[in-house]
Amino acid sequence: MKNRVLISDLNKHIDQEVIIAGWMHRIRILGKIAFVILRDRTGIIQCVLSNKELINQVKDLQVESVLKIRGIVRASDKQESGIELDVNEIHIISPVYDMIPVEINKDEIDAHIDTIIDYRPITLRHQKLRAIFKIQAGIVEGYREYMRSQGFTEIIFPILAGASSEGGAELFKLDYFGKEATLPQSAQLYKQIMMGVYEGVYGLSYSFRAEKSATTRHLTEFNQFEFELGFIENIEDLMYHCENVVRHIIMKIQKEFVKELEILNTTLPIVPEDKPFPRITLRQALEIYKEYTGIDETMEPDLSPGAEKWLSTEWGPKEHHSNFVFVTHYPLSKRPFYTYPHPDNPELSESFDLIGNGSEIVTGGQRVNRYQHQIERLKEKGLNPDDFEGYLMMHKYGIPTEGGFGMGLQRLTQNLLGLKNIREATLFPRDLNRLTP
Amino acid sequence: MKNRVLISDLNKHIDQEVIIAGWMHRIRILGKIAFVILRDRTGIIQCVLSNKELINQVKDLQVESVLKIRGIVRASDKQESGIELDVNEIHIISPVYDMIPVEINKDEIDAHIDTIIDYRPITLRHQKLRAIFKIQAGIVEGYREYMRSQGFTEIIFPILAGASSEGGAELFKLDYFGKEATLPQSAQLYKQIMMGVYEGVYGLSYSFRAEKSATTRHLTEFNQFEFELGFIENIEDLMYHCENVVRHIIMKIQKEFVKELEILNTTLPIVPEDKPFPRITLRQALEIYKEYTGIDETMEPDLSPGAEKWLSTEWGPKEHHSNFVFVTHYPLSKRPFYTYPHPDNPELSESFDLIGNGSEIVTGGQRVNRYQHQIERLKEKGLNPDDFEGYLMMHKYGIPTEGGFGMGLQRLTQNLLGLKNIREATLFPRDLNRLTP
Repeated sequence: MKNRVLISDLNKHIDQEVIIAGWMHRIRILGKIAFVILRDRTGIIQCVLSNKELINQVKDLQVESVLKIRGIVRASDKQESGIELDVNEIHIISPVYDMIPVEINKDEIDAHIDTIIDYRPITLRHQKLRAIFKIQAGIVEGYREYMRSQGFTEIIFPILAGASSEGGAELFKLDYFGKEATLPQSAQLYKQIMMGVYEGVYGLSYSFRAEKSATTRHLTEFNQFEFELGFIENIEDLMYHCENVVRHIIMKIQKEFVKELEILNTTLPIVPEDKPFPRITLRQALEIYKEYTGIDETMEPDLSPGAEKWLSTEWGPKEHHSNFVFVTHYPLSKRPFYTYPHPDNPELSESFDLIGNGSEIVTGGQRVNRYQHQIERLKEKGLNPDDFEGYLMMHKYGIPTEGGFGMGLQRLTQNLLGLKNIREATLFPRDLNRLTP
Repeated sequence: MKNRVLISDLNKHIDQEVIIAGWMHRIRILGKIAFVILRDRTGIIQCVLSNKELINQVKDLQVESVLKIRGIVRASDKQESGIELDVNEIHIISPVYDMIPVEINKDEIDAHIDTIIDYRPITLRHQKLRAIFKIQAGIVEGYREYMRSQGFTEIIFPILAGASSEGGAELFKLDYFGKEATLPQSAQLYKQIMMGVYEGVYGLSYSFRAEKSATTRHLTEFNQFEFELGFIENIEDLMYHCENVVRHIIMKIQKEFVKELEILNTTLPIVPEDKPFPRITLRQALEIYKEYTGIDETMEPDLSPGAEKWLSTEWGPKEHHSNFVFVTHYPLSKRPFYTYPHPDNPELSESFDLIGNGSEIVTGGQRVNRYQHQIERLKEKGLNPDDFEGYLMMHKYGIPTEGGFGMGLQRLTQNLLGLKNIREATLFPRDLNRLTP
């Protein structure tokens, strides 16, 4: 729009005539004077309408109408921004005549989360929601920045896949010209193939789970930061990049999203700046949990949600000044067929989770890389290697010692910003009951 | 891997002992001496094995076996790189015993494209394929770099959607807990919603088309660079960003992917550096095509593939020093219901395509932004506004004058690199007959 000035730049134009454009955030009419708060992507400003013609133009409009306004910027002690606009002319770009179903010009949206999601085209305009997804875009970019800095190669993963030999009730299936296609539960196959091409690869994948769970933790569609690296010695090489990328993301958000963090009234979790995140084995984690809290889960093959929360929000900060804790060496039986067994204890696996500020945000591990070894592992898992011919092709024709991890984008956003429900960290959430908007 | 030196760094270690690791690209055994060409992500090097034990270790291995080699870097006039490795020790990381089904250590892969795709886990390791998808990652990053530099916000688009009111045979449908879900043909709805939140938005979307066409131009799954911008005056504001982003991508590839372009033995299309790309209306384009070639398609509502090719590879370079030509103002009847009509001629639309080095790579236009206007347009198209309640929510509650465009990632890669078949520009192509690998 020609000559449009953004609201954040108006303080450079005091006593000058400017054109601004945006949404009518609020309106107040007091007889012969009216105040319109106009909002654009950079901020809000009070516009003063002091004649009848101007007031008549807007008096029947509802908030969220889109306006172009010409006026003179005036210094004003009464305004927090120090300025207001003395209006000369109003052009209505898009009028709104209906009353808005959810108010978005207060500090909080006073509605149930389902209503907030139902009206996403409007509620996303609320300053808190805008801040969340602006930060999410920063998280995505921060992830890529780190990976690029290491010389790794970005991959655009495919979505449609053939019928899966893993099967499982959690797969979404569709008709593909008379054949069966499936939606991916992970990009595992593709990141391993591409590791065999570029050695270090990353990308943002889509994962689908046809889970019949409607909890605050479940989505049927979510995104994962994928990473896979060849020529590793052991999982330490993976945890190194994992902690560095998380640290980079947090530093970036801290530095570049000051305004958004202020709007959300939140502080980011603690990361150790100069030293590695704490690393403990699953056994150690369960022992520590028992010792400190008296809760005995030492016979469990995994961490409970309670234990994850305690480790990353109580023990980690207190003992290691860190809301992030690596837990390693999960039982081999609880990990997928491609997980590398512990060299000294075949019951355990060369695997790790990163528990970050409340719950698991990363799952990773070393993969089986030799062809014969992978065939043995499949058989031990009760799977038929013939069903995995496509998967095994890369092993058959040579891949190095390697491993990787996946980090959930929405889960990470939720935990970094301390949001209660994962759907608050999801732009357009899909779950058991929801496919729109 | 501890102490591993990348092959591209070996020239800094002449006469020193180093450890390298990679794939056995070629092997040649001449009695008491053997030569192994080792490949890592940075290059290849000749390794000289001059004793029986070493030769015995590798003599039964097939190419693509993964090796770790310790040896001394020696200057060598015979090698193009100026160095070779005098081997002291070999460790076999992953042996390959089967003969590889497609040779990947020659200048070209001598196989049909279907075979090349069938064996993607291996054929992607060929230097030409590695170069194509390395450049593709650069194209993606170049797109984002430009968009970030303009202060626009990145969006991660959802995939699963509810039943579509547009319908059409080209939709993939799936069972979603007893309801019908669909895969998106475009991210149109979501980029418009998000424009209403952040004004300028971009992202890489997935598009699915259940087309029963198996041509060199069709894929059932592809990616699009999406862009949407609010508060525009007209389509000029969109074409401005479109030509700038294409120019930025080409400059970036030219500068940062010299080695890859050399491997592909290709030169990039011509872009005017200091002036806008040529802009002509569809009418003008068809008249010019007729005038220069004698082919009369002036009664057609669109450009034929032949006309697109001629305009962007003959007329554009000759008359405007550009392989990129904007064609504007397509008939309103040939554009979707959200397209803005030409203000002076209701038969035409405020739309454009960018024809780039052979075919259309971008489709864009201004959108209808007023609620009442969009309802009228739906009715004129014979559609029922009640079916579009979700889509119309954003219009109902105010969106500015706006527009955007979509640019196909695979199509752009194909046209920039002059590839014959779009599947050559697609990492894991999906079409009528293919869902794997």
